[in-house]
Amino acid sequence: MTQLLRVQNFSVSSDGFGAGENQCLERPFGDVDPEELVSWAGATASWTMRTDSGGSRGLDDYLTRDYARNIGAEIMGRGKFGPQRGPWENLDWRGWWGDEPPFRTPVFVMTHHTRPSFTLSDTTFHFVDDEPGAVLERAREAAQGKDVRLGGGATTIREFLDADLVDTLHVAVSPLELGSGSRLWESPDELLDRYHVDVVPSASGVTHHLFWRK
Amino acid sequence: MTQLLRVQNFSVSSDGFGAGENQCLERPFGDVDPEELVSWAGATASWTMRTDSGGSRGLDDYLTRDYARNIGAEIMGRGKFGPQRGPWENLDWRGWWGDEPPFRTPVFVMTHHTRPSFTLSDTTFHFVDDEPGAVLERAREAAQGKDVRLGGGATTIREFLDADLVDTLHVAVSPLELGSGSRLWESPDELLDRYHVDVVPSASGVTHHLFWRK
Repeated sequence: MTQLLRVQNFSVSSDGFGAGENQCLERPFGDVDPEELVSWAGATASWTMRTDSGGSRGLDDYLTRDYARNIGAEIMGRGKFGPQRGPWENLDWRGWWGDEPPFRTPVFVMTHHTRPSFTLSDTTFHFVDDEPGAVLERAREAAQGKDVRLGGGATTIREFLDADLVDTLHVAVSPLELGSGSRLWESPDELLDRYHVDVVPSASGVTHHLFWRK
Repeated sequence: MTQLLRVQNFSVSSDGFGAGENQCLERPFGDVDPEELVSWAGATASWTMRTDSGGSRGLDDYLTRDYARNIGAEIMGRGKFGPQRGPWENLDWRGWWGDEPPFRTPVFVMTHHTRPSFTLSDTTFHFVDDEPGAVLERAREAAQGKDVRLGGGATTIREFLDADLVDTLHVAVSPLELGSGSRLWESPDELLDRYHVDVVPSASGVTHHLFWRK
């Protein structure tokens, strides 16, 4: 079986931004309330960060429950791991994701400033300074036959799209305009030369865009 | 975790029939071409009966790929196993599903005429003469903590709905009128007193109805 590279549950504003400007330790999404972007996912029964037994089981839940299915590794940009830029100043700080990160696989963090790998619960973070193709190769090997999730942010997804390495994308477009920040696209139509798309409005207010290769 | 009873990928006509009349050995769906009812599923990459590597990966595929996720047992009516009525006349005939049935779990076939259990590849068929609640209890035990799929046909799903035992339902409504046969509902609105619903039209022509308990 082919090992796919999949974008799952990536939320953007109606004008295509995945996060606002001015990301910092206290504001992983910069100048945007993450609640406004990802509340559709938080309301579902299968959301990875859910701690109680409630939640909806309709359309949005089909999207969140697919998050970990057949995933053996994740690739993410440095901004999804933490707000630092340049050389690491404090190796004791081990990312935004707490003692039990929701990835539960090897994770490859793309950065020009590498640091030693470490493990938190079921997740091992590796720091790699390489091109998308080479990083994907390492992630595929670590995934042991399973698919690889491309976790974001928008800049990282763009890099892999530009290198034509992405097999499927699920992007949830929120009815919220940001105006600036980290941008995935000006319009989803940019991908239509290479991908099929299903555009699926949800009662939660987001519109799911499901792309797969032509 | 609760063990849910889930209906998955059950296809009905626009007037609510899951199969036509006159089911027989050569025509499991009776007087209806099954292709017309279930072609939406057959076109997806994750369809359980697919033998090649093609297929779509959009909305419909999210529905078919959820078919086996966290399922530990299936319950089905006798008509889904075979066309026979009354006492079994030939125990050598072992169902419509071939040497590798797509269920890959214990399957409980509801019938007033029991026969010995048997195993085909990863699937073991048990034949049970009991009320829905008692059958569900046995299936839950066999599922070892996982959910139970309620496989149909329409009459069997109705029995479990009437006993208020179904937790979630995915029903795909095809744009095809049957007029008679085995009926799930006159209208999906019949379930709205007990269930939330997301109604999701697909580019394939079917309209997915996703129900979960209020």
